[in-house]
Amino acid sequence: MADEAPFQLLHSEVIQYIYKSAEGETESGRNVTKLENIGFRVGQGLIERLTKDTARFKDELDIMKFICKDFWTCVFKKQIDNLRTNHQGIYVLQDNKFGLLSHLSVGKQYLEHAPKYLAFTCGLVRGALSNLGVKSIVTSEVSVMPSCKFQVMIQKA
Amino acid sequence: MADEAPFQLLHSEVIQYIYKSAEGETESGRNVTKLENIGFRVGQGLIERLTKDTARFKDELDIMKFICKDFWTCVFKKQIDNLRTNHQGIYVLQDNKFGLLSHLSVGKQYLEHAPKYLAFTCGLVRGALSNLGVKSIVTSEVSVMPSCKFQVMIQKA
Repeated sequence: MADEAPFQLLHSEVIQYIYKSAEGETESGRNVTKLENIGFRVGQGLIERLTKDTARFKDELDIMKFICKDFWTCVFKKQIDNLRTNHQGIYVLQDNKFGLLSHLSVGKQYLEHAPKYLAFTCGLVRGALSNLGVKSIVTSEVSVMPSCKFQVMIQKA
Repeated sequence: MADEAPFQLLHSEVIQYIYKSAEGETESGRNVTKLENIGFRVGQGLIERLTKDTARFKDELDIMKFICKDFWTCVFKKQIDNLRTNHQGIYVLQDNKFGLLSHLSVGKQYLEHAPKYLAFTCGLVRGALSNLGVKSIVTSEVSVMPSCKFQVMIQKA
């Protein structure tokens, strides 16, 4: 049960640490950026380890499937529940029970806190894709916790 | 294989982040304290989850055994290799292949970097014990990487 607990708890503490050490600063957007950057680097390292012995990917969709299955399972101990694409470089990854939100209360009044719990993971996906040669912009959206969506927009060269 | 990778990589990035954001500061001891504090809080949270359904501990030694087995396995996917005690409140936990050091090179010249990779874990143990009502001082020692020892000194009330 507690397999993902060390990671989840460390993730929470990193958020607390960053927000606390920036107290008094006006721009809270910088904290989100810091978390996103940490996620980016973890994503880069992780995809490197995970793909060490895998076959080459066929195409972009093949890469996205790997992110939704193997990569997600490694970090969150479950797969992405739903992957949609417009076949023009936009992918929406939906997780119906996102681990890094599951300890937050479900009430609507907590929705405003969601972004800081998703920034790391946006970076994580962007970092993983970046190491596979895919440049992207990753944003997140929560409507009902603990379900959330990550939107990946591939940046064509 | 990669079960502990997300945690390990996040741990590394936290170290980088803290050391980088303190660049220019003269006291590097403060970084170690910051890492130790983050570890303390993670340790508190983790032991709470892990002991939720366990029986009450018989004594101090019983608690230390739980730290060496269940707690260590949850975080590092292996047990402590050797536990020694003088039966007067000092415990030495030896890990012959400590996960958070295993990515560092073995050469002696890297030994000086070891403390920053151990500070979090010292806090982790201290936080776990603290939540079980045991006050302690935890220090670490590396002689040959990736093996290391954590010394726990119980503080009697």
